[in-house]
Amino acid sequence: MYDLLAGLRVVEGSAFIAGPSCGLHLAQMGAEVIRFDSIGGGPDYHRWPLAPGSDASLYWEGLNKGKKSVAIDLASPEGRELALAIATAPGDNAGLFLTNYPVKGFLSHEALKARRADIITVRVMGWADGAPGVDYTINAAVGLPMMTGPADDQRPVNHVLPAWDLLGGAYAAFAMTSALLRRRASGEGAEIRLPLSDLAATSLSHIGQVAEALTGGDRPRIGNDLFGAFGRDFVCADGARLIVVAITPRQWAGLVEALDLTAPVTALEAELGVAFRHDEGARFIHRHRLFPLFEGAFTTRSAADLQPAFDAGCVTWARYQSLNEAVTSDARLFTENPQFQTIVHPSGLTYSAAGTAATLAGEPRGAVVAAPRLGQHTEEVLSTILGLDSGAIARLHDRGLVA
Amino acid sequence: MYDLLAGLRVVEGSAFIAGPSCGLHLAQMGAEVIRFDSIGGGPDYHRWPLAPGSDASLYWEGLNKGKKSVAIDLASPEGRELALAIATAPGDNAGLFLTNYPVKGFLSHEALKARRADIITVRVMGWADGAPGVDYTINAAVGLPMMTGPADDQRPVNHVLPAWDLLGGAYAAFAMTSALLRRRASGEGAEIRLPLSDLAATSLSHIGQVAEALTGGDRPRIGNDLFGAFGRDFVCADGARLIVVAITPRQWAGLVEALDLTAPVTALEAELGVAFRHDEGARFIHRHRLFPLFEGAFTTRSAADLQPAFDAGCVTWARYQSLNEAVTSDARLFTENPQFQTIVHPSGLTYSAAGTAATLAGEPRGAVVAAPRLGQHTEEVLSTILGLDSGAIARLHDRGLVA
Repeated sequence: MYDLLAGLRVVEGSAFIAGPSCGLHLAQMGAEVIRFDSIGGGPDYHRWPLAPGSDASLYWEGLNKGKKSVAIDLASPEGRELALAIATAPGDNAGLFLTNYPVKGFLSHEALKARRADIITVRVMGWADGAPGVDYTINAAVGLPMMTGPADDQRPVNHVLPAWDLLGGAYAAFAMTSALLRRRASGEGAEIRLPLSDLAATSLSHIGQVAEALTGGDRPRIGNDLFGAFGRDFVCADGARLIVVAITPRQWAGLVEALDLTAPVTALEAELGVAFRHDEGARFIHRHRLFPLFEGAFTTRSAADLQPAFDAGCVTWARYQSLNEAVTSDARLFTENPQFQTIVHPSGLTYSAAGTAATLAGEPRGAVVAAPRLGQHTEEVLSTILGLDSGAIARLHDRGLVA
Repeated sequence: MYDLLAGLRVVEGSAFIAGPSCGLHLAQMGAEVIRFDSIGGGPDYHRWPLAPGSDASLYWEGLNKGKKSVAIDLASPEGRELALAIATAPGDNAGLFLTNYPVKGFLSHEALKARRADIITVRVMGWADGAPGVDYTINAAVGLPMMTGPADDQRPVNHVLPAWDLLGGAYAAFAMTSALLRRRASGEGAEIRLPLSDLAATSLSHIGQVAEALTGGDRPRIGNDLFGAFGRDFVCADGARLIVVAITPRQWAGLVEALDLTAPVTALEAELGVAFRHDEGARFIHRHRLFPLFEGAFTTRSAADLQPAFDAGCVTWARYQSLNEAVTSDARLFTENPQFQTIVHPSGLTYSAAGTAATLAGEPRGAVVAAPRLGQHTEEVLSTILGLDSGAIARLHDRGLVA
C-alpha cells in the first residue's frame, strides 16, 4: 500500500471483477474504500475458487483487500437510503462512487446527483446499451476465440484470464482519478460509464486490429506464433518448453547468437534475399523456414544450458510453467517478490497476497491489508460518516437493516 | 476525447503497447501528450499489422492517436539533452513523464529529478528486476497457457490478446493521475515502476488464483467451460455457436427458462440433491450432467430463434464471430458504436478508429484525433516549451538532431 491517494474516500457498491478491482487499486494506493455489502454477501461472495473445505471465496477476499465493509439490506427502501447517504456524504475528498449497479436503478447517477451535485460516479457495465455481458461473452463477440489456439484445430478457444474485467478495473481507477482532477479544478462532477463491450472494441482499435480487420479481413489462426515478428514455444533436450520472442533487432541478434544460429540464419537470409535483423515482418513471413533451425537448436540443449546464454544475450524468453510451480518456486514472480506479503485472510487462511502492481521507487511499500469481514465497519461508517449515535445504529441492527 | 485532463502536459518516450496505450488514454481524456520519437521512428514504428501494400503500421497509428510528435536523434548527447529538457520543463501541469526506457539509462529518474525535483515518472518494464520481458513471455511464466485451450489437448496455448500490456497501459495512467493528485497536495514527485511481471503476479493474486494454486494446486484445463459456475459454447441448429454464462441466480433462471429446460433441470436437481439456482458451484461440479440437456436444447433451435428468448430473459450470451464479422456488421460493438469515428490516418488510409472506452454521460464526446506524423510537432514543441527561436531550431535541423 502506498499513499498517493491518502485522504480520499471512495464508496463502492460492486461485485465481480472489474468494479472491485478498481476499488482495490484505489485502496492499495491509499484511498479509504468503503464497500457496501448485502447482508450475507452479494452475488460474488461465494464465487470460486473457494478455500479448501469451505465456502469462503478466495476470489472475493482477493478483490476486496484493504477495503471497509458496511453491510446493508439493499433490498429495503431504508437500506437504499443509507447507501445513498453514504455514497453522497460531503467532503472535498469524498463524493466518489464506484459501482456496477444498473444505470437506471436506485443508484442511478441522477439519484446520487440529486443529493450531491458534484458526485463522481464510475459505473462498470457489460454492454454499452445496458444488456448483460461478462468478460467471456464480450470476448466471444470480438472474435478473439477464433484466433486463439492451435492452428490445426478450428474450435474457438475462450481465454481463461478475465482480461477485459481486469482492464476495466484499472481503467475505471484511471477514470475516477481523472474526474477528480477535473472536479478539483472546476467543481464539476461526472458520470462515467465503462462498458466491457467498449473496452474490448476500443482496445482492438488501439492496437491496430480493427484497422487490420477492416482493411485485410481476419487474421488467420497461427497457434503460438507471435504475430508479425518472431516468437514461439520450443522444446528443449530436457523436455522443458520455452517461449522466445524477438521483436527488436537487438532481441533477434541476441537470440540467434545465443543459439549459435548465426551461420544457418545468414545462409537463409542469402537464399531468401532478406535481412531478418532489421525486418521483423520477414521473420514472421518466413517463420516456417526459420522454425526448423530453431527447433534443432533447442532439441540439442537443456533449459539449464540455455538459460545463461539467454540471459547473457538479453534474450526475451521464459519457461512455460504451471501457476502452482510459479507460486511455489518462482522467486521473481512470487516467492521472493516484495509485492507479496503473508497475511491472515477472512477465510481464516494465512497465505501470501499481493499489494500494488506498481513500485514507488524509494518509498515504503506499506502493508498488504486483508479484506474485511462482511459488516466489519458498519458501526464505524454509520457513526463517522452519517453521524448516527449508538442508539440509532442499534435500532438499524435490530430491524435487520444493517449487520 | 473528453476534457477530464485538459491542461495537463505529459511527455512520453515509449514504444510497444503498455507505455503508448497509457499515453493514449491520457491524451483521449484531454491531456497534451508529447511523444519524442527517434528520427525515422522507434522500434515499433513498423510493427505489424501494416496498412495494405505499405510499411505504415496500423498498430503504431492506433496507439498514438491524438498525441504530438517531436522527432529527436536520441542516440546523440545533444538529442538526449533536448529530450530531458522537454520532459522536465516547468509548470504545475507539466513534469509528467511516461516511458519504457531502462531504469538506468539516460532517462533515469535521477537524471530527470536533477532537473525537476517534483518530476513524476511512470516507467513500464518487463520484469521487475530489469530483465527483458514482454507480454507473451510473462504470460508463459504465470501458467495461463497451461490452463488455456481444449481439455483434450495438453499443448500450452498462448493468448493472442496482449492482456498484460493493455492492463499495464491503463494501470500506468491510473498511477500517473494518482501521483499527480499527491503532488498537488504535497509537492512530492515520484518514480513509479510498473513491471508486466508484477502486473501478472498481482492480478492473479487479486482474483484468487494465487491463493487457489497455493492451497489446492493447479486448476485443471477445462476447455471453454467457465470455472466455478455455468458457461460454455454451444452449437445451434443453424450451426451458429453461442456462449452462455450463468453466474448469478437470475442469470441461471433466465437461461433455463429461455431454453425450456425447467423440467429436466428440476429432475436433475432432485436426483443429485442440489439446487442449482442458488449454488453456482454445483452447476460447475455437475456440469457434465447439465451439458447434455443444454446441448439438446441448442441443437433444436436456431440462433435467430433463441435470440429473442435470450434477450427477453436477460440471458448473458453472445454469438462467436470473427473480428472481421464484428467490425463490418456488429452495430453495438463497431458499426454504430459512437466511440468510433472515421478519420484520416498518417498511413493515408481512412478508417474508423476509437476514442475512449469510457462514456461521460451527457458530455460531448469530442473528436477522435489521428496519430501524428513523425516530427509533426517538432518546431511547435521546441519553440513553445523550450523557447527556441526559428534560427536555433533550423540549426538543430541542419545538424540532424531533430526532424
